Amino acid sequence: MAAFTFFYNPMSRAQIARWALHEVGADYEPVLVEWGNKPQALLDANPMGKLPTIIHHHGSHDHVVSESAAVCHYLALTHPRAELTPSEHEAADYFRWFFFAAGPLEQAATSKMFGWEMTPEREMSAGFGNYERTMDALDGWLSTHDYVCGDRFTMADVYVGSHVDWGLQFKSFPERDSFLAYAGRVQQRPAYKEAKAIDMGEIARMQGNG
Amino acid sequence: MAAFTFFYNPMSRAQIARWALHEVGADYEPVLVEWGNKPQALLDANPMGKLPTIIHHHGSHDHVVSESAAVCHYLALTHPRAELTPSEHEAADYFRWFFFAAGPLEQAATSKMFGWEMTPEREMSAGFGNYERTMDALDGWLSTHDYVCGDRFTMADVYVGSHVDWGLQFKSFPERDSFLAYAGRVQQRPAYKEAKAIDMGEIARMQGNG
Repeated sequence: MAAFTFFYNPMSRAQIARWALHEVGADYEPVLVEWGNKPQALLDANPMGKLPTIIHHHGSHDHVVSESAAVCHYLALTHPRAELTPSEHEAADYFRWFFFAAGPLEQAATSKMFGWEMTPEREMSAGFGNYERTMDALDGWLSTHDYVCGDRFTMADVYVGSHVDWGLQFKSFPERDSFLAYAGRVQQRPAYKEAKAIDMGEIARMQGNG
Repeated sequence: MAAFTFFYNPMSRAQIARWALHEVGADYEPVLVEWGNKPQALLDANPMGKLPTIIHHHGSHDHVVSESAAVCHYLALTHPRAELTPSEHEAADYFRWFFFAAGPLEQAATSKMFGWEMTPEREMSAGFGNYERTMDALDGWLSTHDYVCGDRFTMADVYVGSHVDWGLQFKSFPERDSFLAYAGRVQQRPAYKEAKAIDMGEIARMQGNG
């Protein structure tokens, strides 16, 4: 049995998890999930049935991880040889931007996509403030740092990089120079290319073109 | 100089960070931030000026952490004697629910608060699906686990517990039995009581009743 079971659909955030699985060289068994027919094993692990969900078969324990961000960080933690977890001096940047992407950035992009309206009063209570300021914050960081933790690619870049890459593609992110350059850098990762080729191949097959 | 500078306002998510600072017994210097007059030191550290923001004065390095969730986890990491980071077998639950709270739960509560409308199509692309299913997922977990990682309180409970505690207070969470019981458990933490007493005292003074 593979160490990890990976529930996915190529047309979902599971692409982020596949990239992370390839970054760490994980031993994983993919299980394709159709939206209308979710396997019981997935629903037992995660009643919301969200993708990606992974199960880590860890000795006599089965550990379930969902939420793309948690999946990425957990894979880095459990594969120390990949050296994608932060050093002592990188931890502040790593977790700050990991959670920034999972919270404010995701929320800003969702609000933009759905045309949800912000008011000054709402900006005080919403975690992300507003769309422009959220994008400015990330833009400021990526204009002065090649990667989340500075010079070195870490697992935080799989997650933050996926947001930027997808956001540019789906127009929920503005085309700032720093975003285009950062997306270009992370797209050069061999694991990004491997994972993307698998998911694009599956999508083509599902659409009858493969 | 204290090891940590803590930028806060008692009427903000900085309450979560103060609880975390007390859980780990951090050596910190609080800096009260007025909304209309943010100190330059905060804006230099975090151009968005969001609270809480902490600066870790770490030897010759100053590390900035913002985002309540990242602040909580970073404090646990840098204070191993508090034993609030997860063991190897707790890491999956710990990060799964930490990121669930930072992402879907925050987003569901915000949408509820602002009356933002979901449609089945939006539910496919939004990270949180919808409000009811997000609450059901957390309810399911807390109905069968005393804490995020099972039997033991960890830093994930400061963050998830704050969401539940605040959500019940501000009515952005439904009054489920599991939520009420969990909020009751975390409110018993001595560090919760210490931090809450400080913030409530400051709020009373600011309102001229202290």
